[in-house]
Amino acid sequence: MSDVMKVGVLGALGKVGREVCAAVEDVDGFELVARVDADDSLESLVEAGAEAVVDFTHPDVVMDNLRFCIEHGIHAVVGTTGFDESRLAELRSLLGSSSTGVLIAPNFSIGAILMMRFAAEAAPFYESVEIVELHHPTKADAPSGTARRTAELVARARADAGVGPVPDATSTSLEGARGAVVDGIHVHGLRIRGMVAHQEVVLGGIGETLTIRHDSMDRASFTPGVLLGLREIGSHPGLTVGLEEFMPLG
Amino acid sequence: MSDVMKVGVLGALGKVGREVCAAVEDVDGFELVARVDADDSLESLVEAGAEAVVDFTHPDVVMDNLRFCIEHGIHAVVGTTGFDESRLAELRSLLGSSSTGVLIAPNFSIGAILMMRFAAEAAPFYESVEIVELHHPTKADAPSGTARRTAELVARARADAGVGPVPDATSTSLEGARGAVVDGIHVHGLRIRGMVAHQEVVLGGIGETLTIRHDSMDRASFTPGVLLGLREIGSHPGLTVGLEEFMPLG
Amino acid sequence: MSDVMKVGVLGALGKVGREVCAAVEDVDGFELVARVDADDSLESLVEAGAEAVVDFTHPDVVMDNLRFCIEHGIHAVVGTTGFDESRLAELRSLLGSSSTGVLIAPNFSIGAILMMRFAAEAAPFYESVEIVELHHPTKADAPSGTARRTAELVARARADAGVGPVPDATSTSLEGARGAVVDGIHVHGLRIRGMVAHQEVVLGGIGETLTIRHDSMDRASFTPGVLLGLREIGSHPGLTVGLEEFMPLG
Amino acid sequence: MSDVMKVGVLGALGKVGREVCAAVEDVDGFELVARVDADDSLESLVEAGAEAVVDFTHPDVVMDNLRFCIEHGIHAVVGTTGFDESRLAELRSLLGSSSTGVLIAPNFSIGAILMMRFAAEAAPFYESVEIVELHHPTKADAPSGTARRTAELVARARADAGVGPVPDATSTSLEGARGAVVDGIHVHGLRIRGMVAHQEVVLGGIGETLTIRHDSMDRASFTPGVLLGLREIGSHPGLTVGLEEFMPLG
Repeated sequence: MSDVMKVGVLGALGKVGREVCAAVEDVDGFELVARVDADDSLESLVEAGAEAVVDFTHPDVVMDNLRFCIEHGIHAVVGTTGFDESRLAELRSLLGSSSTGVLIAPNFSIGAILMMRFAAEAAPFYESVEIVELHHPTKADAPSGTARRTAELVARARADAGVGPVPDATSTSLEGARGAVVDGIHVHGLRIRGMVAHQEVVLGGIGETLTIRHDSMDRASFTPGVLLGLREIGSHPGLTVGLEEFMPLG
Repeated sequence: MSDVMKVGVLGALGKVGREVCAAVEDVDGFELVARVDADDSLESLVEAGAEAVVDFTHPDVVMDNLRFCIEHGIHAVVGTTGFDESRLAELRSLLGSSSTGVLIAPNFSIGAILMMRFAAEAAPFYESVEIVELHHPTKADAPSGTARRTAELVARARADAGVGPVPDATSTSLEGARGAVVDGIHVHGLRIRGMVAHQEVVLGGIGETLTIRHDSMDRASFTPGVLLGLREIGSHPGLTVGLEEFMPLG
Repeated sequence: MSDVMKVGVLGALGKVGREVCAAVEDVDGFELVARVDADDSLESLVEAGAEAVVDFTHPDVVMDNLRFCIEHGIHAVVGTTGFDESRLAELRSLLGSSSTGVLIAPNFSIGAILMMRFAAEAAPFYESVEIVELHHPTKADAPSGTARRTAELVARARADAGVGPVPDATSTSLEGARGAVVDGIHVHGLRIRGMVAHQEVVLGGIGETLTIRHDSMDRASFTPGVLLGLREIGSHPGLTVGLEEFMPLG
Repeated sequence: MSDVMKVGVLGALGKVGREVCAAVEDVDGFELVARVDADDSLESLVEAGAEAVVDFTHPDVVMDNLRFCIEHGIHAVVGTTGFDESRLAELRSLLGSSSTGVLIAPNFSIGAILMMRFAAEAAPFYESVEIVELHHPTKADAPSGTARRTAELVARARADAGVGPVPDATSTSLEGARGAVVDGIHVHGLRIRGMVAHQEVVLGGIGETLTIRHDSMDRASFTPGVLLGLREIGSHPGLTVGLEEFMPLG
């Protein structure tokens, strides 16, 4: 692979695709060689010499895109949803022992990934832990998917370490005051105009607390994760699930 | 009144009383002249020349204490609980047009008072507002009394300004995820080992948020409020209810 | 004035002007009747029946704009810079006892205004206070203008209340570790990619701290201030300087 | 080792030693069998059957204490300062291939250790990072030792990952406004009455920030680290330096 990676973007005219195109063009080390959208032929990727693609398209077309890329030795960084076990198995079979890499990632926010990892790592060392997520008031679900996922990871880390239930002497409470409970972990959702997507994990032990907070203030915040995926995909042949696999500990 | 105020403490051997004694002794401008507890005579106040007392005693004895102080022209700063309308009326009648001052205050935390005031002042200017309180896990009630009171003040300020309900598009929710609702304001209570008493009021409008946070990290945090009460009581004859009356705006 | 205010925007094609136009169109109670930019005649305001204008233009043209508005009884909410004492004096003279209102405001961020006000109100009650501002790393000046202004207001409030210097026992320090000092108040500036414009005022006394934080996450955050100006300008004849004049205490 | 570990405390009458004694007595799984201070014989440890000691004594006596413990097969968890390379080498030689464990730890705050670890782990993924520490105003040095150490670890992690200097376009600045610079990382120290020991590491990339905050609100916050040391020391024969060695990743 040359010093500059030639990148094609699939779904290039979508909202996310356009941000990916802009990021690839802006950053040293990448060259945007193909913008492909619904009506375009995948052959243009080959003609342009694309070494890797970013795919933010649709569950209906993404498998065809990936079959084409694997066949032509083009690495793929994929944010499209809809991957179940059977799709992942098919990709593994298509890739075989090829040197081509495919990354399937449900979440490209480096900050959210680190927050979840750190929360789970810290969990065994603290008696108490709760999660507060803050989002814009047009969000339909509460708590957020990231908050639920964090609670599950924290609960599992505590269980693995043999930590018992969180202490809570509440005996008189207004309904809802102590939040929702996910796997034994209390989760609180705020809906505030002006906010985008924010989360805080608060852990506490005798005399001290540790707080891990992620603030996502702009939807462009997923682009560094996509670029990280592109930088690493060439040295990770085969199928990888989850951007965290490209983020080594320590 | 001389430059140094001679102060007596009623309930001097109680947990709170001892902290008051220490604070009065430590700070310039005050002289601790009498420590009075359950078995001591109030006469010692007169003998010691006390100009003012601080009373953290018991609802059963506080009215006797105050009758004695008013009779002897001794100002009183009172943190003892149990004052209903009939007790306040009796104090007003006893004080008449005397130059003696009595302050009855349910809350001596300057920070909590300012947080509530600022939250109510800011409320009319923001679409969204929610309250998060964080306390040690041995607390029995949720949400805290201060959080409820803040919610009531914020709700009233919004109503007075004609602000409608907070925006909230939540359609799918785990039970409790959006907190308790007090007068239309969402309130969330966390219970975390290592915390003492903390509260955050989060307000938001288009593109911006304002957060007012109070952290009480030591029970000694009520002493500055008591000292403020002592400094002001001499120039506030008659009955005053609430330390905020001694904290002028602007 | 009818229930719906007819509004013209001067500088309508500028970056800020376009956001003002969008906000006026979006919000109930206003009708956008004229978009005026560099080459357009001010007469269109009269033809469209504008009751008020918003002016985000240029110091070179704003006085002509305001002379026209005052002459035609059109209220004006002005964010254009460059108003010195002689310009303000001229405006006062032009307005005379007219029922027309003109608001000149250097800052339309309601959150920044409230943060400064609350910081100054709280300042006399706390021994310690410091300011932390956080901005994007392309900002040229440090500390920010708002942080300097806040420090000045806090210092004045402390001086007026007779509060002495902040306590600080630092005897060994790396250069810069304690921040810049503005009127005796320590101010710290962080430059962080991903941030927009944020400020925190931290106040502390025995056992407790009070933190007032303003997060501006989107440049659209000035629009609620402009709309507040429009709502109030009709009932404030003459010249007003500073949006805070339209934000009553308590 | 039995289910309950028999623990002796060296320096039992010191401020820290007394808190250690209280913690060992309070927590299940430990039995306090010996309190040893300056004038007491170490033999009492053997008589009481101590399996492990905690040593918060003095650099002048700690080596004698450890020689005695190693000779008698008593594990040691040591918070006493003054260990240089020659002392560590001597301990390694004394321990040889013994099954006895000795932990030398300069910092028993689990939260501070996790904060430093997470900051270093996150550092390679972010363009910007700065450190803010907040302490009581009687602290003599600025920035704090923990803040300096964090900056060094963060700087090294960035260097190892090939991350360039932090972005900073500041061209006009009041002296000190951008803080102290430690290994290229900006560090800001606040001194606020009411605070104990707090630190925040702020990292940022396009559109998002990650904040890791540690609040130490009570000096008892070191005791969970001591107890962790006691729980682990039996399965870590030989010399260990740094409590973090007993805190496995992931």
